Amino acid sequence: MQALYFKDGQLLAKEMDKPQVRRGEALVKIRYAGICSTDLEILKGYMDFTGIPGHEFVGTVETPRSLAGRRVTGEINISCGSCELCRRGLGKHCRKRTVLGIAGRDGVFAEYLTIPMTNLHAVPDSVSDEEAVFTELLAAACEIPERVYISQSSRVAVLGDGRLAAMAAQVLRLKTKALTVIGIDQEKMRLFAGLGIDTAHSAAISSMKGSFDVAVECTGSRIGLPDAVELVRPHGTVVLKSTFHAPLKWNPSRTVVDEITIVGSRCGPFETAMGLLEKKKIETAPFLTAIYPFGKWETALRRARRRNAFKVLLEMGT
Amino acid sequence: MQALYFKDGQLLAKEMDKPQVRRGEALVKIRYAGICSTDLEILKGYMDFTGIPGHEFVGTVETPRSLAGRRVTGEINISCGSCELCRRGLGKHCRKRTVLGIAGRDGVFAEYLTIPMTNLHAVPDSVSDEEAVFTELLAAACEIPERVYISQSSRVAVLGDGRLAAMAAQVLRLKTKALTVIGIDQEKMRLFAGLGIDTAHSAAISSMKGSFDVAVECTGSRIGLPDAVELVRPHGTVVLKSTFHAPLKWNPSRTVVDEITIVGSRCGPFETAMGLLEKKKIETAPFLTAIYPFGKWETALRRARRRNAFKVLLEMGT
Repeated sequence: MQALYFKDGQLLAKEMDKPQVRRGEALVKIRYAGICSTDLEILKGYMDFTGIPGHEFVGTVETPRSLAGRRVTGEINISCGSCELCRRGLGKHCRKRTVLGIAGRDGVFAEYLTIPMTNLHAVPDSVSDEEAVFTELLAAACEIPERVYISQSSRVAVLGDGRLAAMAAQVLRLKTKALTVIGIDQEKMRLFAGLGIDTAHSAAISSMKGSFDVAVECTGSRIGLPDAVELVRPHGTVVLKSTFHAPLKWNPSRTVVDEITIVGSRCGPFETAMGLLEKKKIETAPFLTAIYPFGKWETALRRARRRNAFKVLLEMGT
Repeated sequence: MQALYFKDGQLLAKEMDKPQVRRGEALVKIRYAGICSTDLEILKGYMDFTGIPGHEFVGTVETPRSLAGRRVTGEINISCGSCELCRRGLGKHCRKRTVLGIAGRDGVFAEYLTIPMTNLHAVPDSVSDEEAVFTELLAAACEIPERVYISQSSRVAVLGDGRLAAMAAQVLRLKTKALTVIGIDQEKMRLFAGLGIDTAHSAAISSMKGSFDVAVECTGSRIGLPDAVELVRPHGTVVLKSTFHAPLKWNPSRTVVDEITIVGSRCGPFETAMGLLEKKKIETAPFLTAIYPFGKWETALRRARRRNAFKVLLEMGT
């Protein structure tokens, strides 16, 4: 099969063997693979990953025969199921876990993927492939109100104007009437505004100091955390979403003085995300920047890196 | 009156006018003033403070006559009482607040202090002056279990072996049976061990990674936060207590990946602290390093800065 392979800082397209299916696993023929900021960080060296990158996908089961033909997407953490953390329901934090295209396991920038059947989620008929490939990203956004209580009157800022911000803003506007997306790119901000979401330019952050109950950091950059901490009121909460390779320089004293809580948040509930897609509560089409055939993967990655890009997909097959 | 005055990076002893008592305020003759790590940071430039530093005290009321002779200590935040934050019960975060010896208001390294009567707390007869001067520090420790749920089986690490760690460890051992103080100084660690508290050397942090439910950062240094984050398990909680002048270099990605919560925490409830002192639940004598008369203030500050110091007091009067 065709796949992208990352090793020693180099990403190359190569012909590889179709993966061996182990007990309990399904073989999935990938249709679309989404390019995520984490993938771009991995290609810079984050996580010291070697193998096939990519973790957002939609595809069709080939084996086992009982599931053949089913359209599926899947959760990215593969846990041991028996350790202390797994038994406490924290399987996504299992210390023995592998993570699709991120840690110890090949991902989805390939024609085929093997994945435990328990990780699969069926895609309802009313959800298109182009929507379903957003499930993993949308689930990460759905985790935000699972971790932090948000009421109808909570003043919430989403910091960032990228792919995750687009999902976070849409999830959070189902919870509160007082939402502001704070970004940089004018073109992207118009898109948010077009959905009826209030926007502000990040140049105005200093004038918004302390005016939010919750700030959700989705910038994917090192500036995100210090800015988010500035935005919340005393006793406010910052939800930290970005992972990146290089350290930041920051003085956390305001966190102490103003008794701010910072909540790290990663993957989220696929059921909730798929339910929102099925109920047409989330717009994905405006945030689907481009679809490239596998052969154009270099162009696709370049496109995904551009400031004005939302989600870029690789079409691995049909 | 005699006082220490800080201006333009210089601390000097000088003769000053006895402060004017405003409506609603008491005039307190200071007996002891405690030297806190925040004071030492202020003398490095933290908070851009100008005036009389110091905020930990015990003294005797001179006026109003109705309170004259009462032994008192006092809360350090002076709030407006009418803003949104004050009305929400977050008076210690009032944006118009002044803070004794920290922000916009003279502190306690002086013979006399004026302070709103509502900030005062009477010292019970059974609590000595040498104990009462620990109230503010102990209250900050009492805030920890107010912010984070700690059960009898919670595995809790206190990171640091200083004055705040001494109070935090004693408050937390009333909550959990699984407490470890992680410090550097052998002499200080023996003191903790003498109170029956488990100790570990910070050189062993890498072998303790992920083994605590809660890590309380009391180091007063920039290394504290990254170390504390390493110590907690996935979904664990870090309580951040240190404020300092210079920024730290840190990659918060693990906070996101392991979905760790960081809770900034500053001042705490005086009633709880005084109650613990009254019930003799907290040892202060082993942590009272030295008492210096006012004239020896330079020696006192030098002593407070030494690695093996706990609490150093200035005796302002008798």
